Amino acid sequence: MTQKIEIEKKILSENDRLAAGIRRLLKDKKIVSLNLVSSPGSGKTTLLEKTLVALKNEIKMALIAGDVQTENDANRLIRAGGKIVLPIVTGGACHLDAKMINEALGKMNLDGVQLLFIENVGNLVCPSSYDLGEDMKVTVISTTEGDDKPLKYPAMFRRSSVMVINKTDLLGYSDFDMALVKNNALQINGNLKIFELSCRTGIGLEVWYNWLKSLV
Amino acid sequence: MTQKIEIEKKILSENDRLAAGIRRLLKDKKIVSLNLVSSPGSGKTTLLEKTLVALKNEIKMALIAGDVQTENDANRLIRAGGKIVLPIVTGGACHLDAKMINEALGKMNLDGVQLLFIENVGNLVCPSSYDLGEDMKVTVISTTEGDDKPLKYPAMFRRSSVMVINKTDLLGYSDFDMALVKNNALQINGNLKIFELSCRTGIGLEVWYNWLKSLV
Repeated sequence: MTQKIEIEKKILSENDRLAAGIRRLLKDKKIVSLNLVSSPGSGKTTLLEKTLVALKNEIKMALIAGDVQTENDANRLIRAGGKIVLPIVTGGACHLDAKMINEALGKMNLDGVQLLFIENVGNLVCPSSYDLGEDMKVTVISTTEGDDKPLKYPAMFRRSSVMVINKTDLLGYSDFDMALVKNNALQINGNLKIFELSCRTGIGLEVWYNWLKSLV
Repeated sequence: MTQKIEIEKKILSENDRLAAGIRRLLKDKKIVSLNLVSSPGSGKTTLLEKTLVALKNEIKMALIAGDVQTENDANRLIRAGGKIVLPIVTGGACHLDAKMINEALGKMNLDGVQLLFIENVGNLVCPSSYDLGEDMKVTVISTTEGDDKPLKYPAMFRRSSVMVINKTDLLGYSDFDMALVKNNALQINGNLKIFELSCRTGIGLEVWYNWLKSLV
């Protein structure tokens, strides 16, 4: 397997080189960028739909929506009012990489854009290894996934700046312990900024929106 | 990236060679094996806990519990009465492979075992590419993940024999459409055997248990 590790190292260093270029580009253009990562079905797309609608008059946003197959998420974001939305279909690959983002950005008109969301492939493992040139990784988890996720997938939480806990409306329908999940996450990364919200009921979204506004 | 693809091909063919050996071993020992795959938090471990308790007097079961970090799932399965339970901590790797299973089986006493469960890493992408020598892959999804998962992660559903839809007690708290998810899954793999159940309320578990009994 040593050969595999060597190749992976090479790929990651090429990725880091491209990511550094993306970071410079976005900084030059004064675009704040968030890389949203999560398990499949935690609610990244729904959170972005709500955000697009709520902030459309206040922030100029662009989105890159990654999926293994289908452009369904990108289409949902366009229907929600997204004007600058680019789908990336990885065709089987388990994560987005800097090369894909680089190519996507080349196709987008970024004039005046203040905030770029990158919606990664739903996968709590592999996307943690790939720097996309973003300012921050935002891990979205949902209460129905269980409070043990930070301990079982520590790399993602270690490399994220933010943890969004979605589906708080379903608290009480499972054994999810809010205090425990926060404790588990902060044990891995004491600097995590944490949001609790429900995209379904809207509770907590205002705090998320206000934070986004403070970034730009 | 061609070099990466070549290396991946080599690794997969080595994996297939080992998987074929495992398949022969398990066939010789008359052990039926199921490889459980899913997103993080869909309820694989809970389903196995319930199964261990329900069938302990009827079927001799062994379990291999894979996780990126922690042996928490393996410990849960032992507490649920699992007598032959082996944890695999991948230490960052996003899937189990045949080499890990081969080594695990070498450490287990398989005498009289009728049914082997392999609980894969929670990841709806990468584990689909690795044959572990199992008789069947069982994809577990939960109603809270959304009904679009088969379309977005088709490889897993294509390579599975069974789809378990868990958390049916939470139907009605989301927009999950049971008919649609089945249709989406069967469109990708018309041979999928489908179970609907709730590990929380117990509804549907009897049908799952009866099917397991029919296998051994």
